[in-house]
Amino acid sequence: MSEKIFTYHQLLDFAEKVFRKIGCPDKDAVTASSALISADLRGIDSHGVARLSGYVRLWEVKRVNVSPGIKVIYETASTAVVDGDSGLGLVVAPYAMNIAIEKAKQAGTGWVSVQNSNHFGIAAHHAMMALQYDMIGIAMTNASPLVAPTFSIDRMLGTNPICVAVPAGKEPSFVADLATTTAANGKLEILQRKKQRAPLGWIQDKNGNPSTDPHELKNGGALLPLGGDKEHGSHKGYALGAVVDIFSALLSGANYAPWAPPFPAYVPMPAEQPGKGIGHFLGAMSIDAFRPADEFKKHMDHWISGFRNAKTIEGEERVLIPGDPEREMQEKRLTEGIPLVDSVVNELEQLAEKLNLPFI
Amino acid sequence: MSEKIFTYHQLLDFAEKVFRKIGCPDKDAVTASSALISADLRGIDSHGVARLSGYVRLWEVKRVNVSPGIKVIYETASTAVVDGDSGLGLVVAPYAMNIAIEKAKQAGTGWVSVQNSNHFGIAAHHAMMALQYDMIGIAMTNASPLVAPTFSIDRMLGTNPICVAVPAGKEPSFVADLATTTAANGKLEILQRKKQRAPLGWIQDKNGNPSTDPHELKNGGALLPLGGDKEHGSHKGYALGAVVDIFSALLSGANYAPWAPPFPAYVPMPAEQPGKGIGHFLGAMSIDAFRPADEFKKHMDHWISGFRNAKTIEGEERVLIPGDPEREMQEKRLTEGIPLVDSVVNELEQLAEKLNLPFI
Repeated sequence: MSEKIFTYHQLLDFAEKVFRKIGCPDKDAVTASSALISADLRGIDSHGVARLSGYVRLWEVKRVNVSPGIKVIYETASTAVVDGDSGLGLVVAPYAMNIAIEKAKQAGTGWVSVQNSNHFGIAAHHAMMALQYDMIGIAMTNASPLVAPTFSIDRMLGTNPICVAVPAGKEPSFVADLATTTAANGKLEILQRKKQRAPLGWIQDKNGNPSTDPHELKNGGALLPLGGDKEHGSHKGYALGAVVDIFSALLSGANYAPWAPPFPAYVPMPAEQPGKGIGHFLGAMSIDAFRPADEFKKHMDHWISGFRNAKTIEGEERVLIPGDPEREMQEKRLTEGIPLVDSVVNELEQLAEKLNLPFI
Repeated sequence: MSEKIFTYHQLLDFAEKVFRKIGCPDKDAVTASSALISADLRGIDSHGVARLSGYVRLWEVKRVNVSPGIKVIYETASTAVVDGDSGLGLVVAPYAMNIAIEKAKQAGTGWVSVQNSNHFGIAAHHAMMALQYDMIGIAMTNASPLVAPTFSIDRMLGTNPICVAVPAGKEPSFVADLATTTAANGKLEILQRKKQRAPLGWIQDKNGNPSTDPHELKNGGALLPLGGDKEHGSHKGYALGAVVDIFSALLSGANYAPWAPPFPAYVPMPAEQPGKGIGHFLGAMSIDAFRPADEFKKHMDHWISGFRNAKTIEGEERVLIPGDPEREMQEKRLTEGIPLVDSVVNELEQLAEKLNLPFI
């Protein structure tokens, strides 16, 4: 499996051109490409430029509206509901996060539930928008149903990620961004490419038996909630994924559970649609609404260095702080570039040709 | 291992008398016993009356103040910080939750971080206070350090539970209450009593090796974050436990990470104390601040029945909704009584004698 190296700005620029070409207003093309390519930068390759063709296909089948009239349809001092008007989640989520931040400036916290949106890329990109204001940022979204609840063979939930971003002082920010499954779908895709087996606890087959075949989803299998099985707490992962679904879709009026629209444009929409589009939930908590931010950040530094200096198990290099691997990957890729495997490069070249755009 | 059966009201009454006897004002004794015995009722035996002697011992060593001046030390429209004045968490947490609820009535949501408190029993009791107001209730707390972060042998976090309680319409409420570890400490205690081994993924020994010995904590071992090991997502359980610590203790000014005060009164306080007592985080979100509560609850009913009717894996009885087992246990125990194992009964008898109270 060979790969080519691109600079961050090459990928950003290409994505921006693609979004503009399919009709996004300039500002939205900038917002969307920045959200999308942040995934490649942070090493979450499954959610970055590799999905660009997928977003375009959603536009082709008219599931994505490239010039949406995103608007607040209800609000209180600390809450809002946003209708994304079928826009790209990459654009709708930052819009909603900015509202959460403005609410937090006034009321201490801001909480925005979003209906009628599409996939928003990586949760961390949106949650981290709060950091510069000395706020804790929170982002979650529901997604295509791929996950079976404990004891079931039915795919009822998405990988429903949660991100919590917390500012620190001298230390880098704490950024926990996690799918509520044992492993995200992107990790299975990597195993498929490498022709390797998955560990037990990641997936089950169509009858609910434990499986190590990374292609199991294509055969009617399902991803497993964090925990893997009941004995190891999969009912907790299931409960967390359910909370994400409720906050993102039931509070907002989006589709939920097995009725969440699928990301692949070739998968038909579910016959039943109890809401509109998919849902997100964005939150911002101003540190100053609890205690002086400087004081808090000193304690965060102390917390972080405490964990960084915890004794490691023999043979393990170090204890990580949530967000360390992604931040280090970002530093590396900003200087050394971003490697893309050939299959992704080919798909991007085809996309460029289809849209009559030069490829990088 | 034999056991005796008590009625809910017998245990409630005894706990109330104990709290009154050690000096709690009447109202606090009622609040504390109701919070405590709700754990026995819901089948969380480790957190109920079995801990009553433990709370009394904390009072004996002057770590619990039985007549605290609990107060709000800072607030905004949607937030508050509460100083528990070393009170029982069983009293401080409901106080803070009531503030969160009042804030949510005014500002849509309310978020209260608590410092200078003690263990608060089960998170569900506090989170569920919001349900009667058609609000989503959230409760979390940090706790005695027993959990090693991924790759470490040091106990840096408590089992740090999260509860999210969501109102429904005709269906019972959704109540997810989970320790951010693979298994809560109470489950190890049950295995110890039954002289059984623990599954791999629950605990590690003092060197960080996987272990099945439920006594491992006494030998310097640690509980494992939800996921169990890196391959199965223990970094996610670690991150979630960390978020609970940050929201509960770093936002409020409580002790955090390995410096959280231990529950057992015989364990000395950590030499370093970066804050006051332990911390909680309570939240309330008014459904009406997002969409009409009736509409939301109809969709929650649809969500719940969708999961309840999901296809089961062959051999499994049914797909559970978070909160089902505890609610069913409560119904059962309200009619059939609450069984206590002899060791717990003996300890309660000794407690009664020490305090010169009749035992039930």
